[in-house]
Parts: sequence; structure tokens; C-alpha cells
Amino acid sequence: MKRIGFIGVGTMGEPMAANLLKAGFTVIILGHRNPAPVERLVAAGAQKAQTPAEIASQTDVVMLCLPNDAVVEEVILGANGILAGGREGLIIVDTSTISPLTSQRLAKIVAEKGMTLLDAPLSGGQTGAIAGTLAIMVGGPREAFEKVRPVLEAVGKNITYVGENGTALVVKLGNNLIVAAEAVAIAEALTLAKKAGIDTGLVHKILSAATARSWILEEKVAASVLKGDLKPGFKLSLMHKDVGLALDLAKAQGTPAFITALVHQLYTQALGLGKGDLDSIGISQLYEEATGVDLRAGN
Amino acid sequence: MKRIGFIGVGTMGEPMAANLLKAGFTVIILGHRNPAPVERLVAAGAQKAQTPAEIASQTDVVMLCLPNDAVVEEVILGANGILAGGREGLIIVDTSTISPLTSQRLAKIVAEKGMTLLDAPLSGGQTGAIAGTLAIMVGGPREAFEKVRPVLEAVGKNITYVGENGTALVVKLGNNLIVAAEAVAIAEALTLAKKAGIDTGLVHKILSAATARSWILEEKVAASVLKGDLKPGFKLSLMHKDVGLALDLAKAQGTPAFITALVHQLYTQALGLGKGDLDSIGISQLYEEATGVDLRAGN
Repeated sequence: MKRIGFIGVGTMGEPMAANLLKAGFTVIILGHRNPAPVERLVAAGAQKAQTPAEIASQTDVVMLCLPNDAVVEEVILGANGILAGGREGLIIVDTSTISPLTSQRLAKIVAEKGMTLLDAPLSGGQTGAIAGTLAIMVGGPREAFEKVRPVLEAVGKNITYVGENGTALVVKLGNNLIVAAEAVAIAEALTLAKKAGIDTGLVHKILSAATARSWILEEKVAASVLKGDLKPGFKLSLMHKDVGLALDLAKAQGTPAFITALVHQLYTQALGLGKGDLDSIGISQLYEEATGVDLRAGN
Repeated sequence: MKRIGFIGVGTMGEPMAANLLKAGFTVIILGHRNPAPVERLVAAGAQKAQTPAEIASQTDVVMLCLPNDAVVEEVILGANGILAGGREGLIIVDTSTISPLTSQRLAKIVAEKGMTLLDAPLSGGQTGAIAGTLAIMVGGPREAFEKVRPVLEAVGKNITYVGENGTALVVKLGNNLIVAAEAVAIAEALTLAKKAGIDTGLVHKILSAATARSWILEEKVAASVLKGDLKPGFKLSLMHKDVGLALDLAKAQGTPAFITALVHQLYTQALGLGKGDLDSIGISQLYEEATGVDLRAGN
């Protein structure tokens, strides 16, 4: 387990691949539409390959960090995909946030080839990826999890085995629906207060010492909404996708999902208004624009 | 400022009045439909009076900890109310969560009598009231706030002056709408996970180390939903009232309040189903009953 493939060296993937290199792994990455991270990783010692099949033929573990279900499916099942090049025993560690239903379906196909798929979604954002402190949840066969644990420990902390394939993704979608709901609720609370003439910096200080306190309020809102800095972190378009996946899951289960459904509508609206490339916390702009208030502290 | 009146010695008020006694204040309380807390406080050294007017005539500060707008209005303006007995200079510290619009209206009437009303809502629940660690937000004239600060310091920590009358209540309603939205979002996330076969204790552990972490998740859900212990704390019926007040405020301001409105509907439904005396976190039962899952850990 010393040769690791890494496919998807974007916002999250690049620092994860860099941490694997620092930990002494041989890392083979795929060319990417954005050449800059590929060049930086090659300069740091990574090798470069042309197709997922080529990567799979040279490695024991292939990590994926990809934007959506379709891309993950293409990278695994496509003509030059991982299954076309991988040997028996290969473990695919998919850190992408995709549908647990998709992941379960892919896991069966992968298993028929004598390989293993693990769903290993992340929490902690780009900051956590850079620091190597990501929380990682893992679903799939436990033996495969134990084999790749040293690899996961090079990129994260709080590494938890959840259960069978797809279960880690269910927990991840739960995490993100809570975060998205918090972002909306905080935006409403800040807007109510600002409309009543109260500085949002003061509101933030009080709520951070009260029962409304949360990671989103204390860390995220302080660094973004209060400063008017909505560059991503975690893009609104990705949060829209994740909350949509949670809603799909609820529908498939027959679970009522009132707040998930509403939050999905609001993120759909924000996406339609061109806010997809803001950080997901930028949902607050819907409230600023509808009321004319400025949610930055000290304004 | 050594003689303090206290009206409303219920779940929150009783431990607050007890902490005032411990801090050396003379405390005069009102008889209450539930005699037990009155008897306990008298045994601890409190004096007892028959009407708010009688309390006001003997004290410099009267603290209120009452369930709703109508009761606060009656206690202040009623035939034997505070205004009927109080002297000029009396300060009323209303720790009740009521409408900021009501508090502003009452503050004007109180000021016409040469007295002062402060809105001083609390955060921290019964645990915080007992420990004397409540967060207290204060709205109203700043000079009056400075005069009663030693009284507030006997019952809480994190005491913050917010601004003019009603502003502290606006922040408090913001706090509670966030908390209520979190309770619903967490219930949906736990139900999705449990339906997928994942133990809620494990989900809770993972989310508590991830970006979804919050006081509600880490402290409240752990002590209640996961143990199946929904005795209040903070009653669902009171949360229903508070989210309704936030919705009224949003309507009066012309602020969109999507999540506040939805959460209010869910709490209205839970109230109608007879869950008003559960803790507010008991909104989770709506999901358990609709899906047949048991959200307790280890089940």
C-alpha cells in the first residue's frame, strides 16, 4: 500500500495528494483540466498518468475526489476507467460526496471484478485538507478499510468506520443538510437583528456564547458573512448538490424531510441567481438582497 | 439595589431567585399557582408578597421570568401590577421571552411613570439557571443596565448590553429560531441515517467532530434524543411560542423568513399532537412516528 493513485486534484484533492507525498507515499495523479495543481504536485514529487486505467495498473489504492456521481461513474466504469486497468485486490477510496445509492451500485460492480470500493466522504473543508485534519467517514468492507487506514491517516484525523457501502455517505449528507439549514437559519437571525438596528458583529458575539452556537456560526460566519468575504471554501453549487442528494435519499427511504426540501429550494434559487461560485454560506445574500441590509459587521 | 422583587419562580425563575439569595440580596417573591418552589425559596430566606404592586412598593428592582406577553403585561399594567405600587426610579428587569414589539410598547408606558423597563432575555436553560451561568442580553436605557449589572451578575455570565428597548429580545428570538431549526435538521439527519441502518450514537459521534457540530447536537441531543429522555429543559410549547414571535417580527419588518416559518409549522403540528410538555428537542418524535424508527442510540 505504498503506491497511491489520486484522481481529482482540485480544491480538496490537491492538498490531500500533497499530504500523501509528505507522508512518503508514491503518488500518481491524473492530468486535469486545470494544469496548475498538477504542475505543483509534480514539482513536489508526484508522477503523472494519462488515464484512470493507467493509474490503476500501477497502484494498490486509488483515491478519488470528484465533483459528482457522473464523473465518479465514468472514472470507475468508463472505457479507460479504473476497472479497465486495475488488478484484483485494488481498493478504490472514493472521498467524493455522491449519492449513497450510486455508491452502493458501483460497489457491487467493482466487487465483481475482485476489487473493492469504499465510500470515504470528508468533513473539514479546504482548511482541513491543507492541515491534514479532515474528518473521514468510511463505508464498505471492514478489511479493506483496515488496509487503507494508514493512507487515510496521512490526510485526516477522526477517521471512523461507519458500516456497509454507502453508510458513510448517508452520514455525510446528514452533516451537510444540517450545515446548510444552519446557514439559512443564521442568515434569517442576522437579518432580523440588522433590520432592528443591531450590529451583526455584536449579534454574532452574543450567539456564539449562547445555545445557538455552532461551528458554522463561530468559525464560518465570522470569516465570511461578517467580513463580506464569500470566496469558497465550499462552493454553494456543491452544497446545492449535496442537499439535493439528501432529498433524493429521503424520497427513496420514504422519510419526511421538510427542512431539507426547503433548504434545497433556497439553494436552487441562489444557484439560479448566479451565486453558485460563492461559498455555500453565501445563501445569506438572498436575505441581504431582499431586505436591503448589509450583514457585514460594523456596517 | 439590595432589595429585589422576583415574579415567576418557575423552572428558570426558581434557581435564579435562589442564586440572588446566595449572593446576599433580599428577595421578595410572589405566591405562585405551584406552591413548591415558593416554599423552597421561603425556606432559603425569601420573603413572600401577595401582589406585584406590593413587591414593587418594597423593592428597587423587580425581575420577571414569565411565560408570555399577556402575563408580563398583566403583571406590569394590571390593577395590582408593578406600576400601581412602584416608586420613581424602580427598574423592571424582564427576563421573559416575549415579543420585542410588546416590550417596546410597555417600556414607553413604564417610562411615563418615571420607572424603567429592561428586556433581559436569557440563554442557557435550566442547567445554566441553576449554575448561575446564564447568558443575559439586555435592551433599554444604558444607565439602568449599569445600575442592575450586579444583580444580573448574581444569576448569569456573558452579560451583554445590546441597545435600545427590544433589541435584546430580537437577538434572543434569533438564537431560538436557530436552535429550533437545528433541532429539526438534526432530527432529519438522524432519521435518514437510522433508516439506512446506522446507529444514531455513531452518527452523533461523527457529526460532533465534523462541521455540523453545535451546542444543540453535542449537549442537548446527546442528553435527550439519544437516551429517549425528552423531559423538559425548555418546553416545546415555549419554543413554539418563541419561533412564532420571530415570525411575527419578520412579518412586521418585511423580512423573508422561510426556515422560521417552516419550523413554526412543525412546532405547531407537534403541539397539536400533544407534545407541548416535552422538551423542545422532542420535535424529533414527529420523525420517529412518521418512519417507525427509534432514534435512541444502541437501538
